[in-house]
Amino acid sequence: MTPFFPQSVSIREVGPRDGFQNEPEVIATEHKIELIDSLARTGIRRLEVTSLVRPDRIPQLADAERVLELMDVPDGVSVSVLVANERGLERALCHRAQIDQITVFLSASETHNARNVNRTVAESLAALQRVIEGARAAGLRCEGVISTAFGCPYEGRVEFTAVAEIALALAAAGAQEIALGDTTGMANPVQVLALLEHARDRLPEIQLTAHFHNTRGQGLANVLAAMGAGVDSFESSFGELGGCPVPAGATGNIATEDLVSMLSEMGIETGIDLPALIACSRHAQEILGRELGSHTLVAGPVDWRQ
Amino acid sequence: MTPFFPQSVSIREVGPRDGFQNEPEVIATEHKIELIDSLARTGIRRLEVTSLVRPDRIPQLADAERVLELMDVPDGVSVSVLVANERGLERALCHRAQIDQITVFLSASETHNARNVNRTVAESLAALQRVIEGARAAGLRCEGVISTAFGCPYEGRVEFTAVAEIALALAAAGAQEIALGDTTGMANPVQVLALLEHARDRLPEIQLTAHFHNTRGQGLANVLAAMGAGVDSFESSFGELGGCPVPAGATGNIATEDLVSMLSEMGIETGIDLPALIACSRHAQEILGRELGSHTLVAGPVDWRQ
Repeated sequence: MTPFFPQSVSIREVGPRDGFQNEPEVIATEHKIELIDSLARTGIRRLEVTSLVRPDRIPQLADAERVLELMDVPDGVSVSVLVANERGLERALCHRAQIDQITVFLSASETHNARNVNRTVAESLAALQRVIEGARAAGLRCEGVISTAFGCPYEGRVEFTAVAEIALALAAAGAQEIALGDTTGMANPVQVLALLEHARDRLPEIQLTAHFHNTRGQGLANVLAAMGAGVDSFESSFGELGGCPVPAGATGNIATEDLVSMLSEMGIETGIDLPALIACSRHAQEILGRELGSHTLVAGPVDWRQ
Repeated sequence: MTPFFPQSVSIREVGPRDGFQNEPEVIATEHKIELIDSLARTGIRRLEVTSLVRPDRIPQLADAERVLELMDVPDGVSVSVLVANERGLERALCHRAQIDQITVFLSASETHNARNVNRTVAESLAALQRVIEGARAAGLRCEGVISTAFGCPYEGRVEFTAVAEIALALAAAGAQEIALGDTTGMANPVQVLALLEHARDRLPEIQLTAHFHNTRGQGLANVLAAMGAGVDSFESSFGELGGCPVPAGATGNIATEDLVSMLSEMGIETGIDLPALIACSRHAQEILGRELGSHTLVAGPVDWRQ
C-alpha cells in the first residue's frame, strides 16, 4: 500500500440534523441552540443545523425556523440546511441571511427512494434540479446527497454507474458538492475505494463527500479507504448520534470525535479542537439523558505524555 | 493508494483469555466451556483459551487447568494459552496434549512492563527466552506478544527500533510468531503502516500478528493499514470483550465479528462463519447479563438480498 493521504480534511458536522432527527424524544429548542452554538466554536467549518421538511413528517425538526433565528454561529462556519423540495427551498430563502448552503437528497435505489420520499428516482431528480437552480439563483451553495450509494437494504447491490449518473445530473443542475451516503452501513473499504475512484474520475470538478455510518464498526476503515481514493470531505455526527431504522437498532453516522481523533493522530489537519468537541458530546449526553456511542467520548484524546 | 490486501487472513480469537480476564464477575467454568466449544466450531483456526498465571493475581482464570481438561476443541483448531513465566510453562506442559502453542508477553516500555510484571524489559526478555526454549523443546509453537508497541500510557511514544529489538530477541529465542499489541488503543493508521513495514522488514521469517484495541473507534482502520503493510494475522475478541484500565472505561480488543464482517465484505477469506460467531457473542451476552459492544452483534451481517 502506498497511501497518499490528504494534508487536511474538511468535516461537516451533521449531528444537529441527522443526529437529532433520529432521537425519539423531542429536544427543546434551547438545548439544540446550546449544542449548535458550542459545536460552531470547536473550529469546525461546516455545520448542518436542521432540516426544512414537513413538521408533521419530522416533529423533532418542527422548530427549524426558530433554530435558524436563535442560533449564534460565528463567521467562517458554513451553515447548511437539508431541504426536501421546492417548499423547503422557499422556507430556506426566508432565512437566507442565516444559511450558506442547502442540501438536497435522493436515493440511488428506486425502492429506498420510494419508501423515503414516495417518488421515483427520475421524479426526485427533476424536482431537485428545480430546487438547485432556485437555490443557486439566490446565491446559495448546493450539495446533493445520494443515499444508499453503497448498497440498498431493499434491493441489495447498487451499480456504480447508476450512482455516477445521478451525481452527474445533480452536478449539471448546479450542485457544487456531491455526498455519497452509506445510509445503512453496507460499505466496505474495497468497494469504497472503487466507487469513490469511479466518482472522482466522473466528477473531477465537484467536491466529493463521503457520508459513512458505523453500522458494523467499519466506519473509520471506510474513511481511510476514501482518503486513499482522494476524498478529503466527510460528514459525521458528534457522539455517534443518529441511527437508521434498517437494520433495527443499528448505530448512526460515524462519530465526529472518533474521526477527528484518528485524523489528528495521523497528522491530518481538521481545524477542530478535540477536547472542545468531546465537551459538546458530553453536554449532549446530559441533555439526552443517556450514554452516547462514540469511543473517544469515553477514552478521551490520545495522551502522548508530551 | 494502491492497496494489496491479502486473499485470506488468519484470526486468533482471544476472548476466552483477554476478554474473560477483564470481566469483573467470575464466569462459571461450565459457561466458559460452552463458549470455547462454540467458538471452536465457527470455523476459527486459532483460539487462545486461558492464561496460566497466578490464580491469586487473576482469580477469573484460576480455573485454567479445568478449562483445558473440560473443553472439546476439534482437530484443526490451534489452541494457545498465555504463560507469564517458567512456572506457567510447567503448568502448560502438564496439559501438553490440549495445547498447541504458548504465548508469552512483555511490554515495549519499561514503565508499563514494571507495572504489569514488576520486571525490567531486559529481565522479562531473559526469563521469556528460557520459557520459549523450554516450550520449543517440548514441541510447542511459541508466540511473543509485545504490549504497548504503538505507545505507552505512562511513557508516551515508543521507538520502532525498541520494538524491533525486542521482537528480534524473542525470535532469536525461538518464537515463531510476534504480535504487536496496541494495548491501550493509541495506534493510528499512519503509524501502523510505518511500524509494521519496519517490523516486516526486520523479521522476514516470522509470522507477524497485529493486536489492536478499538479504544477510539479506530480498530478496523488500523487493521486496514496493517493489511496494507502485508500483515495477514490478527487477534480479536468476540463481542468486543476485554478492556483496559487505561484509559478508564475504555473498550477492549476489536470485535471479532466486526473484523470478520469487514474482511468478508472485502472478499478476504477468514474461514469463520459470521452468523455462528454472532451466536457465540449473543450467548456471551446472556451469560454476562449485559449488552456487549460489537456493532455487528446488533446489525447482523450485511444483507445483499441475493
